[in-house]
Amino acid sequence: MRKSLRRILLYRGSLLHLQALGVQKVYSYTLGKETGISAEQVRKDFSEYHIKGNQRGGYNVDELIGEMENIFHKNGRQNIVVVGRGNIGSSLANYERFIQRQINIVATFDIDPSKQRIRSEIPVYTMERIKEIIDRFCVRTAIIAVPDLAAQGVCDRLVSYGIEGIINFAPVILKVPDNIIVNNVNLSDEIESVIYCVSLPSAKCPE
Amino acid sequence: MRKSLRRILLYRGSLLHLQALGVQKVYSYTLGKETGISAEQVRKDFSEYHIKGNQRGGYNVDELIGEMENIFHKNGRQNIVVVGRGNIGSSLANYERFIQRQINIVATFDIDPSKQRIRSEIPVYTMERIKEIIDRFCVRTAIIAVPDLAAQGVCDRLVSYGIEGIINFAPVILKVPDNIIVNNVNLSDEIESVIYCVSLPSAKCPE
Repeated sequence: MRKSLRRILLYRGSLLHLQALGVQKVYSYTLGKETGISAEQVRKDFSEYHIKGNQRGGYNVDELIGEMENIFHKNGRQNIVVVGRGNIGSSLANYERFIQRQINIVATFDIDPSKQRIRSEIPVYTMERIKEIIDRFCVRTAIIAVPDLAAQGVCDRLVSYGIEGIINFAPVILKVPDNIIVNNVNLSDEIESVIYCVSLPSAKCPE
Repeated sequence: MRKSLRRILLYRGSLLHLQALGVQKVYSYTLGKETGISAEQVRKDFSEYHIKGNQRGGYNVDELIGEMENIFHKNGRQNIVVVGRGNIGSSLANYERFIQRQINIVATFDIDPSKQRIRSEIPVYTMERIKEIIDRFCVRTAIIAVPDLAAQGVCDRLVSYGIEGIINFAPVILKVPDNIIVNNVNLSDEIESVIYCVSLPSAKCPE
């Protein structure tokens, strides 16, 4: 993920938290302190993404959030599909937070036909219906949550159906054409890296 | 997460995949190509982590994997706990891959007593038992998978019980003492960043 984009998402998370606490005004150094980023970097990122937030006497929290939402949701709700209805796929299908974030999971797919009997708001379809659903809901982004050995095949298929962005939970490095965006989320790696850092004598992993 | 550490995990993932395909020897440029990292950086990282892999005529894949496993698992299986047995907590508790990675989830905790009736290999306990379990299983690393507003309280409690490393799935920035390692995993952010990149006219987010 692009680093400045990651920071914007971090600022927004922090601002939403401050908003929930009733905070109305914020300074770049406050936001920097909250997120562990320098005030200068905060201002630089705001400038890159044209975030203004009416800064007389501090930025207005609501306005900042509004401007950030516009960056991410300028196209409204985004329909996405999840391939693989195992633990991770189900967890994502049931994750309530996505609705607030305008992330709209329209369908999940699984090779195992018995998964179609799962009771859930998000339907489970067989793999045969992927193209139909992608076309019908104008889906451009997909989540891959299948076992490693199946991931590349699923990826190739999604790309051939017009998918442009992939969030990949399978622990493999996918081969895709240059114009396709892939974001790998490897949960084991995230946990192992913390275990590793904790095991160091100094118990500190620098960034 | 420290960048070089993230890359070592990436190399290992790629090597495991190559191993599964029957590949026995690998060059730094092959590994670099697989992971999208320069051959020079691969060699630099290997040197930083003292990875040798017997490099006459290419690195030996098995040896490289073995050396990387030693980095991460030099202390053997690591007992960890998960606080919050919602969607994400349950998904992590049931994730089979962790066993292979020597990540041993010994218990999960939830404020809701009805969760204790969940049928699963990994037990669900009430919050009252956290300290007892942490002490009994010498747990140093914990996963926080509770709602945002509960996360800081859970974090403070875990730190007071001696937890040194935290993987945080709650979308808040936790305040911790300097010696505590926190790795934030924000699933909405991971998905939103891809949606954002796909929506760009050029459809390409540089790193």
